Amino acid sequence: MENSLKIVALAGGVGGAKLADGLARCLPPQNLTVIVNTGDDFEHWGLKICPDLDTVCYTLAGLANPETGWGRTGESWQVFDHLRQLGGADWFHIGDKDLATHLERTRRLKAGQPLSQVVRDFCRTWGVGATVLPMTDQSVATIVQTVEFGELPFQEYFVHQRCEPTVKGFRFDGIEIAQPAPGVVEAIHAADALVFCPSNPWVSIDPILRTLTPYPSLSKGEGRKVVAVSPIIGGQTVKGPAAKMFAELGMEPSALAVAKHYRESISGFVLDTVDAHLADEIQKLGIRPLVTKTLMKSLEDRQHLAEDVLNFIVRIV
Amino acid sequence: MENSLKIVALAGGVGGAKLADGLARCLPPQNLTVIVNTGDDFEHWGLKICPDLDTVCYTLAGLANPETGWGRTGESWQVFDHLRQLGGADWFHIGDKDLATHLERTRRLKAGQPLSQVVRDFCRTWGVGATVLPMTDQSVATIVQTVEFGELPFQEYFVHQRCEPTVKGFRFDGIEIAQPAPGVVEAIHAADALVFCPSNPWVSIDPILRTLTPYPSLSKGEGRKVVAVSPIIGGQTVKGPAAKMFAELGMEPSALAVAKHYRESISGFVLDTVDAHLADEIQKLGIRPLVTKTLMKSLEDRQHLAEDVLNFIVRIV
Repeated sequence: MENSLKIVALAGGVGGAKLADGLARCLPPQNLTVIVNTGDDFEHWGLKICPDLDTVCYTLAGLANPETGWGRTGESWQVFDHLRQLGGADWFHIGDKDLATHLERTRRLKAGQPLSQVVRDFCRTWGVGATVLPMTDQSVATIVQTVEFGELPFQEYFVHQRCEPTVKGFRFDGIEIAQPAPGVVEAIHAADALVFCPSNPWVSIDPILRTLTPYPSLSKGEGRKVVAVSPIIGGQTVKGPAAKMFAELGMEPSALAVAKHYRESISGFVLDTVDAHLADEIQKLGIRPLVTKTLMKSLEDRQHLAEDVLNFIVRIV
Repeated sequence: MENSLKIVALAGGVGGAKLADGLARCLPPQNLTVIVNTGDDFEHWGLKICPDLDTVCYTLAGLANPETGWGRTGESWQVFDHLRQLGGADWFHIGDKDLATHLERTRRLKAGQPLSQVVRDFCRTWGVGATVLPMTDQSVATIVQTVEFGELPFQEYFVHQRCEPTVKGFRFDGIEIAQPAPGVVEAIHAADALVFCPSNPWVSIDPILRTLTPYPSLSKGEGRKVVAVSPIIGGQTVKGPAAKMFAELGMEPSALAVAKHYRESISGFVLDTVDAHLADEIQKLGIRPLVTKTLMKSLEDRQHLAEDVLNFIVRIV
């Protein structure tokens, strides 16, 4: 029964990609649409880089490098090695196969193709069955407002500064005029439920939700269920700065803090067994909790969590 | 004696690079400066590509692919192969090592480094002893005026259209405001002789000379000898469309036509033994001819031709 659900998943990078992959292992391809954050996108070496889109697509295609959390498996490094010889190897590592993605995407975008079409074509090549959509075809830039350096473009904060600066807030350049990519609104209308994957609430899920603000009925109401999976387990994130961001913004980092952050949008919340003691407080927020194993170390973990989420969606009234 | 000469060579792509390499095998590094055409430079995949500069630098460094006439030896094709999978492999083939050059050059140019500095740094990395200079740090674009397609950017004419359109003339976009790159004027002032390498007179040597028009004393006079080596042998070019261009512009393609083209600039002209019968006519133009073997098939051929050119320069009064 749960595999006849039509699901729209909202995802950022690694954690989001893993649950999206779990969902793809449970659902027929036509029943899953993944909407991916593009606020982290940036230019490097004149190339358009879309870290979250690539992580999601590579993961769904089985091409992702499981060790790094970025880039591709079986990668080669000819270009990067020769860049290093020329003094040009820097903080952003790009393998040869990955580079082909960036080059061809950049070429197509310059030729006027919308990003959503590029992603669709690439997914067909890579054998990705689910529909993957960028949140928007327009340019949105996540800006991290920091104590030490003022405003930093996301990748500058994330990769170059290693998330060390203290966060004061966020700004999403261009979000006001960004339209949801073609297919986003239709997919949500057709969906039984939205799933907020265990991605960073501040810089992965929020920008996606912000692109939907012109459509207030989409992210809640209309009988559509919305379930979020906590990216914070035992007060920490598996990967990335979400917990640090909560703390720096004055909130104790926890699954509860995540549930509160999403309280206006969600009807169900999935938290890890180590955080079971928070379930009652989440229930008091008017949000149905599901306590289960959320850490995804193996492909089986992804599928089990996805099954739990889908069964949970069926059970939510 | 001839290896104490200070030489400035003007060069385009393969033929020019070969003679420049021959000269580098005869002269101490500090005695050779190669000024390279940049009118063929273009953007592809958002990258700045400088075909003649790369051919000259790779050739001088011993890194050039001897079979293709472009690109590098021992090249790998990971990026290109994956581009092909994504439907993006097109008319312009770039190997992995070569791509590193374009990426790092593009990065540096965007960061504000002048092209001449990029070339100097790359040459140091590649172990090129001679000084290689772009003709200018500004952007100049060679436009081929054709009967069939009107104006075509050079690479569009050369690679994509395979030199098939009929040529009516040439235009060098930006040449009026282009300054010689730092070091060009100084090198010519210090030189005993200029050598026009066996490159295309219309689209390789002419643009370089055009950047020098604000300095009319440079390309002749001041006791400096100027010697050109014919790129046309037996009415044909070894590589490239120079002969076809002469014909389409209404001149019988020959070493004599090349000598006439350069007559205002040169005091000596080197032509192949198969064209020995043209030596008298060249002499009648007031240009001293040297008949010798000019076809460069081997590294030894390059060095022999360079030795002949240098000895010729010493003998010219």
